[in-house]
Amino acid sequence: MRDAMKLDRFTKALAQSDFDLVVALSPENTWYLSEAVIDTQRTLLERLAIVAWPKQGEPVYIVCTNEQIQARHESWIPDLRGYVEYKESPMAFLAQAVTEKGAAQGRVGIEKHSLNAYFFEELTRLLPQAHFVEVGPFFGHVRAVKTPDEIARLERAAMATDRAIQRAFEGARPGKTERQVGAVLSSELILNGAEMQAFQVLAAGTNTCSTHHRAGDYTLASGDIMRTDFGGIFPGGYYSDLARTICIGRSSAQQEDLYKILWEEHERLIAMMRPGVPCEELYVTHKREWEKRGWAMVRPHIGHSLGIGLHEHPLFMQGEKAVLEPNMCMAIEPNYMLPGVEKYHAEDLVLITEQGPRILSRSADWGRLLTPGG
Amino acid sequence: MRDAMKLDRFTKALAQSDFDLVVALSPENTWYLSEAVIDTQRTLLERLAIVAWPKQGEPVYIVCTNEQIQARHESWIPDLRGYVEYKESPMAFLAQAVTEKGAAQGRVGIEKHSLNAYFFEELTRLLPQAHFVEVGPFFGHVRAVKTPDEIARLERAAMATDRAIQRAFEGARPGKTERQVGAVLSSELILNGAEMQAFQVLAAGTNTCSTHHRAGDYTLASGDIMRTDFGGIFPGGYYSDLARTICIGRSSAQQEDLYKILWEEHERLIAMMRPGVPCEELYVTHKREWEKRGWAMVRPHIGHSLGIGLHEHPLFMQGEKAVLEPNMCMAIEPNYMLPGVEKYHAEDLVLITEQGPRILSRSADWGRLLTPGG
Repeated sequence: MRDAMKLDRFTKALAQSDFDLVVALSPENTWYLSEAVIDTQRTLLERLAIVAWPKQGEPVYIVCTNEQIQARHESWIPDLRGYVEYKESPMAFLAQAVTEKGAAQGRVGIEKHSLNAYFFEELTRLLPQAHFVEVGPFFGHVRAVKTPDEIARLERAAMATDRAIQRAFEGARPGKTERQVGAVLSSELILNGAEMQAFQVLAAGTNTCSTHHRAGDYTLASGDIMRTDFGGIFPGGYYSDLARTICIGRSSAQQEDLYKILWEEHERLIAMMRPGVPCEELYVTHKREWEKRGWAMVRPHIGHSLGIGLHEHPLFMQGEKAVLEPNMCMAIEPNYMLPGVEKYHAEDLVLITEQGPRILSRSADWGRLLTPGG
Repeated sequence: MRDAMKLDRFTKALAQSDFDLVVALSPENTWYLSEAVIDTQRTLLERLAIVAWPKQGEPVYIVCTNEQIQARHESWIPDLRGYVEYKESPMAFLAQAVTEKGAAQGRVGIEKHSLNAYFFEELTRLLPQAHFVEVGPFFGHVRAVKTPDEIARLERAAMATDRAIQRAFEGARPGKTERQVGAVLSSELILNGAEMQAFQVLAAGTNTCSTHHRAGDYTLASGDIMRTDFGGIFPGGYYSDLARTICIGRSSAQQEDLYKILWEEHERLIAMMRPGVPCEELYVTHKREWEKRGWAMVRPHIGHSLGIGLHEHPLFMQGEKAVLEPNMCMAIEPNYMLPGVEKYHAEDLVLITEQGPRILSRSADWGRLLTPGG
């Protein structure tokens, strides 16, 4: 299960960096390096898991003893150490590892965006001579380009999610509630191989205008737009993230037109996704297109890299100079809202290749506005 | 929907504290004060939502503009301010609010366990005269005692979760996979009223020994112990958290004995849950009981307060001097593992009242080892 190409990419980047040691402590970066996916890193944020990786020498993996059986089972890192929660501090274990690895007076890359201020104050007390530097962008750069194993995982996750959406939407008929459709969506995701649901936006009618509406008691009526933005966490911690829009029962000519405009824009953006293209270019061209139609474009981004993180670096946003590279996996998600009425949303996962974009996420033809029960 | 008793409890505690202003920025504390449950606070940790509440004057609620429609819809706080993510810093908005409220040189309670080191460094640069003090224990104390509305929410959540477990376990027959049972569990939770699943441990046979095993491809056999530790997030952000154990098909006399010992211990601990009892007393008496049987007790705690947080203050652990008070809602969860074979686990939610403990979480009789398909 150890992805040697991925770890090779990481260690080469570390060798070329000016860090003496880097510390991973976000769920994403510890999962990436340890290959153990410990769910409680998301639900119990105080229960830290940490990988400390020196430029010279072997990494140390620190977990709460409650998670030690799983960590031993899933991780390839031999040097696993367990702290007892509420009794021992993970920072004491980290300081010990940094010292052992000779970096107590060195340049230590650490995730200041993920470590809380309380632990960071403790760590700087324990290692007063260390120079702590933000390591987030370093990991972002490493993780942005995927290995064949990662691409295969992301494609399986995306296809499974698309099938779950298809199945749930097939049963979305007038008279059903959002909640009933949402329950099918949740269970189909699991049956299709997800380890857990990560998020579920599911809305019909005017509810579609609320960015993160949760499925509720609203009863579907013929002519309602239904929108989902939906994702799970799959083996290895890899995310899926797709958005689809349908119309319940019968659609109007205006709804079909709006969907067609959105879909053509979606396809146009995908066609732009080639190596060498700056990420901000997609944002800027899309903003121009929407504004040409007189549609306000206030969203700060229209897509993002996807992997073991949900919104990974780089994003399609103004000012993002990073260029697309082969083997990046990018989610692209234009949307359009008729204010107070309904919102249309499309999102696919696209692999960047030398030959051009390859869509990883379509198990069905979403190119026209589908109307189950119509 | 505004819980006036809850906010009254909070403002009285604030008036008696030595804070000039307190800042909530964990999902739990912002949901508690704002009553807007914004899911992305869990999935996108950088997308902060913040409530700044001065001792004198009205609170300010700061959210990312992406979430502003939902925040306006769900929150009762009139002064709502939106920052554009990746463009504007939530810390700039917070510093502005603290200054407006006259606390820029005051004693500011802040959640150092929830604010990351990067944002905290920025905030201390923006407000160099402010004195920042950890506010976590203050919120922990306020939230530990529930209002009638909160108790009703927690009871509905617990009962819905118990029914979902019952339904999923009814279909847990030899030949099915863990994953199939898990999918029913997930969808029943949503159909019973959860807004999202928070976590799902579901394991059979030797998999039950792994603390946080996820349902996988393992096929159930007659005689397998099956264990779940399962919870959702319900309206208002309130958690459920229950553990149940059954035996697939036919159980052995030893399995029935072990379950009986666990259950009697569970009931004995519940009977102790009365106002005035120190939390550590339950831990110590349980440890003594297990050790009398020659069973090692290495777990750091055996239960916790439950509410808008999963592991709230106080916990049933050694050294926890906090005493039980009326209207606390406490999860109690003894377990026993036959190492390498199987683990038995029971968890219920108990309301502390002057009249004694009241169990909020039993929709069925779990007092004997149930054997679906047996």
